[in-house]
Amino acid sequence: MEDNTEYFPIVRVSEKKREVKRDLVIRELPLTIFLNNQELVTLLCSAGDLKNLAVGFLYSEGILQRKEEVRKITLDEEKGIIWLETGEKKGFVKKLMFKRLITSGCGKGVTFYNVVDSISCREVTSQVKISWQEVLSLMKNMQHQSELFRVTGGVHSAGLCDNKDILVFSEDIGRHNAIDKIFGKCFLEGIKTDNRIIITSGRVSSEILLKIAKRNIPVIISRSAPTNLAVNLANKLGITLIGFARGRRINIYTNDWRVNGDRTLTSDKSSLNTERAEIVK
Amino acid sequence: MEDNTEYFPIVRVSEKKREVKRDLVIRELPLTIFLNNQELVTLLCSAGDLKNLAVGFLYSEGILQRKEEVRKITLDEEKGIIWLETGEKKGFVKKLMFKRLITSGCGKGVTFYNVVDSISCREVTSQVKISWQEVLSLMKNMQHQSELFRVTGGVHSAGLCDNKDILVFSEDIGRHNAIDKIFGKCFLEGIKTDNRIIITSGRVSSEILLKIAKRNIPVIISRSAPTNLAVNLANKLGITLIGFARGRRINIYTNDWRVNGDRTLTSDKSSLNTERAEIVK
Repeated sequence: MEDNTEYFPIVRVSEKKREVKRDLVIRELPLTIFLNNQELVTLLCSAGDLKNLAVGFLYSEGILQRKEEVRKITLDEEKGIIWLETGEKKGFVKKLMFKRLITSGCGKGVTFYNVVDSISCREVTSQVKISWQEVLSLMKNMQHQSELFRVTGGVHSAGLCDNKDILVFSEDIGRHNAIDKIFGKCFLEGIKTDNRIIITSGRVSSEILLKIAKRNIPVIISRSAPTNLAVNLANKLGITLIGFARGRRINIYTNDWRVNGDRTLTSDKSSLNTERAEIVK
Repeated sequence: MEDNTEYFPIVRVSEKKREVKRDLVIRELPLTIFLNNQELVTLLCSAGDLKNLAVGFLYSEGILQRKEEVRKITLDEEKGIIWLETGEKKGFVKKLMFKRLITSGCGKGVTFYNVVDSISCREVTSQVKISWQEVLSLMKNMQHQSELFRVTGGVHSAGLCDNKDILVFSEDIGRHNAIDKIFGKCFLEGIKTDNRIIITSGRVSSEILLKIAKRNIPVIISRSAPTNLAVNLANKLGITLIGFARGRRINIYTNDWRVNGDRTLTSDKSSLNTERAEIVK
């Protein structure tokens, strides 16, 4: 908590007064990743779970595949540097990273989604179901856990869940980083992600959707909005995408058959698809 | 508006019912930038102002400096491709871009901020002042203008303002893109940015702060939180950073001497600095 924030004097101005106060601000720190002594990338992130972040990032990028590959991880938190050593040399990585970073930092167009990532993204076939009450209860849990957000208002949180509980929780100034921190922990500790649920405070863009698709996650729940690319990908990849899970209602954008509840009026797999055909753009 | 959104059938589940509805979702599209027939980068962004976005991005990255350099801009909106031609060849650009993208997509550590960008970031000396009522009034204006946010909940908005009005308004799924769209328009239409104010719905990270510092902007107002790096940079660069401008109050993080109002209790330039020295981290 202390590592994650910094006090600043601020002037707060309101109708009644102008006063100098202390305010807690979220820390933004650079983490430079070296893979086999080769500098790969610097992420701007929040302190905490930095090993998970580095590993999760490389895992999401397809550079790490199995835990056994990782021989040694050394973190110098003060300097913001992390060194990873793998058994076999990954000589092609730097070139790949440069290429991927353009795609990852900013996306790589339609081809990227259809070709490059379709290779690692097969349809998610998990038959997991969840009720809307469970969706809202998980969202409530996540918000309770996020002390950093309460005090700084400046972070995203995310969680890997089963129907009842958040199993792995993370926070970061970046919504991408928060997800990578979770998958890094899963990678290092052998936590299975199939049949699990991802919950996030952030918007669901195509990049977030692809990250969870690669981990074979059947359900993503967001407090915020999705983009059309994310909805189209979720539809194609068999993922249930839930947005605007706030208060007492949720929006299910795709594969609503996984969400059952006391008031299930539609439950066949094709309910949304039938509607879909009727909508003229 | 139509170009920016796509209708999807959704299932909305609430306490009372489960119903199929139509929901407007923000479009996320890839825009690939070619500079002198060389592919540079693909940005994931929202439709609208795509020329401004491409130009603003290259301007922020330091690749474009003056309008006269741009000989021709051709946009194929359908394909998501934009071609820019400059008078002189910029042969070094691709190498620079690759290097910069690592820095830009994810930041490049402390060295980046101190060395690379300090070159183009001098202290902002503008004596512009603004009252807290004007701050809140500009925020209100921005929220009124943002129809896309109202219908999709999925975009960031930003504006270039004087004390009373929003002069240039933009929206995008990315908070960086929204700012680049503004500066792209300023670049192409010769709109001066000195002594102006930037207002944004998004969080203020170090990257956002550096973008506005390069344009010599003295004041940034955000509806959300800043990071500690942004606060430290704003302090060093003489920029007034205002956060959490919501409802009837604002937090001034740095250089509060630019904010005067009816109830000015502190007004000397050193008010925050004196406090700053007293805070033990």
